[in-house]
Amino acid sequence: VSGLATVETALEQTYPDALETLKAFCRIPSVSTDPAYREGVRTAAAFVADQLRAASLPVVELLETGGHPAVFAETRPIEDRPTILVYGHYDVQPPDPLEKWRTPPFEPDERDGRLYARGVSDDKGPVLIPMLVVGAYLKAGVELPVNVKFLIEGEEESGSPHFEPLVERSKDRLACDVVVSADGAMWRADLPSVTVASRGLTALDVTVTGAAKDLHSGRHGGSAPNAVRALVRMLATLHDADGRVTVQGFMDGVTPPDPAIRAAIEASGFDAARYFGEIGADPPQPLPSGIDLLVRQWLEPTLEFNGVFGGYSGSGTKTVVPASAGAKITCRLVAGQSPARVRDAIVRHLESVLPTGYRLDIGLHGPGSEAFAIDPDLPALAISQNLLGEMMGKPALRVAMGATIPIGTVFKRHLGVGTIFFSFSTADEDYHAPNEFFRLENFRLGQIAWARLLARLAEKP
Amino acid sequence: VSGLATVETALEQTYPDALETLKAFCRIPSVSTDPAYREGVRTAAAFVADQLRAASLPVVELLETGGHPAVFAETRPIEDRPTILVYGHYDVQPPDPLEKWRTPPFEPDERDGRLYARGVSDDKGPVLIPMLVVGAYLKAGVELPVNVKFLIEGEEESGSPHFEPLVERSKDRLACDVVVSADGAMWRADLPSVTVASRGLTALDVTVTGAAKDLHSGRHGGSAPNAVRALVRMLATLHDADGRVTVQGFMDGVTPPDPAIRAAIEASGFDAARYFGEIGADPPQPLPSGIDLLVRQWLEPTLEFNGVFGGYSGSGTKTVVPASAGAKITCRLVAGQSPARVRDAIVRHLESVLPTGYRLDIGLHGPGSEAFAIDPDLPALAISQNLLGEMMGKPALRVAMGATIPIGTVFKRHLGVGTIFFSFSTADEDYHAPNEFFRLENFRLGQIAWARLLARLAEKP
Repeated sequence: VSGLATVETALEQTYPDALETLKAFCRIPSVSTDPAYREGVRTAAAFVADQLRAASLPVVELLETGGHPAVFAETRPIEDRPTILVYGHYDVQPPDPLEKWRTPPFEPDERDGRLYARGVSDDKGPVLIPMLVVGAYLKAGVELPVNVKFLIEGEEESGSPHFEPLVERSKDRLACDVVVSADGAMWRADLPSVTVASRGLTALDVTVTGAAKDLHSGRHGGSAPNAVRALVRMLATLHDADGRVTVQGFMDGVTPPDPAIRAAIEASGFDAARYFGEIGADPPQPLPSGIDLLVRQWLEPTLEFNGVFGGYSGSGTKTVVPASAGAKITCRLVAGQSPARVRDAIVRHLESVLPTGYRLDIGLHGPGSEAFAIDPDLPALAISQNLLGEMMGKPALRVAMGATIPIGTVFKRHLGVGTIFFSFSTADEDYHAPNEFFRLENFRLGQIAWARLLARLAEKP
Repeated sequence: VSGLATVETALEQTYPDALETLKAFCRIPSVSTDPAYREGVRTAAAFVADQLRAASLPVVELLETGGHPAVFAETRPIEDRPTILVYGHYDVQPPDPLEKWRTPPFEPDERDGRLYARGVSDDKGPVLIPMLVVGAYLKAGVELPVNVKFLIEGEEESGSPHFEPLVERSKDRLACDVVVSADGAMWRADLPSVTVASRGLTALDVTVTGAAKDLHSGRHGGSAPNAVRALVRMLATLHDADGRVTVQGFMDGVTPPDPAIRAAIEASGFDAARYFGEIGADPPQPLPSGIDLLVRQWLEPTLEFNGVFGGYSGSGTKTVVPASAGAKITCRLVAGQSPARVRDAIVRHLESVLPTGYRLDIGLHGPGSEAFAIDPDLPALAISQNLLGEMMGKPALRVAMGATIPIGTVFKRHLGVGTIFFSFSTADEDYHAPNEFFRLENFRLGQIAWARLLARLAEKP
C-alpha cells in the first residue's frame, strides 16, 4: 500500500470526526466586518491554531496585524522538497438578514447532503480540508510529498486591509514555490473548473447630511433638507438607464480582456432565461444573451449599491424628515483599473452632484484590490486542472470569476510566486446570502483531491 | 374667593404630584405604529382611564376600535350648560434612532426646566392638563362651568386608521357644542398663537424586488438586478432639482390658500438664515426668503421620504446585490387635495418608472386625511385666542401648521361642530425626533389656562 493510499483511507475513516470539527468551526460567529463580533473572530483564530496543532504541525502562530490576526503554521521542512503555501480565511460574512435563514446562521444544520451555516462554504469548509489532509499525512506517519505552510487570515470578508503589509513583512517566513488558495469557488456544481482570473474591488460608504437631527415632516416638510431625497437623487446619476456606470474616469486604464476567457464564455452555453430563473428574478425585457451576462459577470467592472439606509425603516409610519442617509458601494474592477483611481472618480462624481445645503461624507475600507490573472503556463495550474478533471469525470474548464481574490496579486508582488485556486465550494452556495451551505460530497471529495494534489505538486510545483 | 380662584390655587398646590403623574405616563412606551409595543399601548390606555377615574369622572370607558382603544369619559351632565369634548392622544412616535437620545426615551429626565421623554410634548403633557383641570374642579367641589367629555385616542401617531368609524358610531355619546383639542402645538415659544389650519396626510410604503434573495456582488454583480439601484432611480424622478414634486396629478384640486394665513406669513418676520441655523443645516445657495419657507411649510403640499432601506447597513462592508429595497413616503396635503387621489397618482408614477425585471409592491397605511381649516367666526376660536394673548402678554396670532390634525374634519363631518386647538406644547420640542421635551413652565401655565378656558366657554362655546 502506497503512502497516498494510506492517507486516503485515513481520511475516509476520520470523515465523521472531520464533519464534527467543521460544525464546531461554523458555530463560531467570526464576522470580521462588524466590531460586535470581535470576540467571535478571536475565537475562530484560536480554533484554527488548535486544529493545526492537532494536525501535528510543529510551528503554529498567531500573526497580529493591527486588525484581526492571521494564523501561520508550517510543517517540519524536508530539504529538496518544494514548498507550497496554503491560503484561506476563517472570517465570514455578516449573517443578516437574519429572518431569512431557515435555521440560525451559527447553528450548523445538515440537510439533504448539505451543511447550512454562515461561512461553511466561504471559507470554513474549504480551508479546513488542507488542514485535515496535512494532519492525515503526519498522523499516519506518511512523509509529506511537499513542505506545507499555512496562512489563514481573518479579514478577507472585510477587504483584507492588513493583509498585504503582513505578507510583505513576513516574506521570508512565507517563502514558497507556489500558493494554493483554499478560497475561491468552482463555477458550477456539474462542471469542474479552475479559476484563472478574478475581478478587483474597491469600496466606499457615502453619507449625506442635511439638518442636525431628524425633523417632524409636518412642521418642516417642504422647507427642511431631506437627506434621503438628496441621496437617491445623487445615486441615481451613477448609472444610465441600462445600468452602465456613468462616472467620468471609471473605465480609465481598462485593458482588453483575455481572449481565452472570452472564448470560454462563448463555449459555455450560459442560458440567460435559466439564470434569471435560478436567482428568482423576472427576466428583463428584452432578455440579454447568456454571453452578454457572463461577460458582465467576468469581464466588466461594476458599481453596485450593497445597501442604502436613512430615516425610519421599522413597521408602520414615522413622519420624519431624515437628517442623514447613506449608501454602501463596492465596485468590481477589471484588468487595468486602479482601485484608488476608481474610488476617487466616484467621489468626484458625487461631489459634483451634491445639492446645495447638504454635506457629503465618504467612508473608506482599505486600499481595495486590483483584478488578477494567473500566468497560464504555471505548472501547478495544469496539475490542478488535470487532477480535477480526472476526479470529476470530465475536463475542467479554465474560467474567470466575477468575485475578488486579491491575494494573487499580493503573493506575486511580495513572494514572487503564482497562486492557483483549489477550492471545493461552488459558486451557487449562497455564501454572501442567507442559508449559505456547503455540499458535503465536496467536503469528502476535496480531502482526497488535496491529498493527491500534494503528491503531484512534489513533481513540479 | 371665586370657584375659579379655588381651582387655580388647587392646581398650584398639586403641581408636584401632577409632574410625577406626567413622568409615570411618559414611562409607558406607547408606540402605536410598531406592533412590538402593543403591550405599552394597552398600558397607556389603562393609565389614562385610571387618571380620569382619579379625577372623579363618573363615566370612564375604553372604546375598542379594532386597533388600539380610545378612552372615553364624561362628567355628570348639568342641564343648560354647554358641552365641550376634549380630544388628545396617549400614543407616541417610535423612539429611534435610540443612540441619539441623551437619556433613554422612556425614562423621563428633568433638565433646565424641561422634561425629556418620548411623547412628553406630543401629546402626553398637553393631554394630561385638561384631565388634571377637570379633576381640580371636581375634587374642590367647584361646579364645572361646562359639561366635559374626553376622547383620548391611541392611534394618532399611526394615522388614526380606526378613529373616524369610532366617532361615527359613537356620535350620540360624543355630542357636544365644540371640540377642544389638547393636541397640536404653539408655533413659537416666544409668541402665543392659535392654529386655524393644518395640512392633510397620505402615506405609502414602496418596495422594489429583483432577485429572490441577496446575491454575492462578485459572482452576480453586473448581471443580476440590484433593487437599490432600481429604487433610487425611481425615487429620484419624484422631485425636480428644486425639490418640487413632479408626479402628474399631484396638485389636482388644490384650492388657493386662505389670504389671512398668507398675510400672517408676510407679517411673521420669519428668518430663513436663522431657520437653517436652528435645524443645524447648511443654508442652501441661493437662500430662499423666510416667506417662501413658511409658505412651503404651511401652504404647499409635500412628498417626503421618511426612510429608505435595502441590503446591508451595518458596519464595514458586505458585498451583496440587494434583492429588495424600500422607502417610506408621506405627503402633506393642502386644501382641495384628496389623500386617495394623491396616493394613486404616486403609485401610477412609480409604476411608470419601474425598470424591467423588477417587481413593485405598495403598502398602505389607512385612508389618510384631508387638510383642515377652522371656521374663522367660531366663538371658541376668539375666546381661546384672547385668553392666550392675555396670559402670555402679547396678542395671539392665527397661524397654520404644516403638520396634520385630521380630527377637525372628522368631528365636523360626524358631530357637526367646530374644533379649536388649545395645546401647550411648542413646535420646536422635537416631538418626532430624539430628545423630545416639554417646557414645564407651559405644563404649569396650561393648567391655569385650561381652568379659565372652561369658565369662558360657559358663556358662548
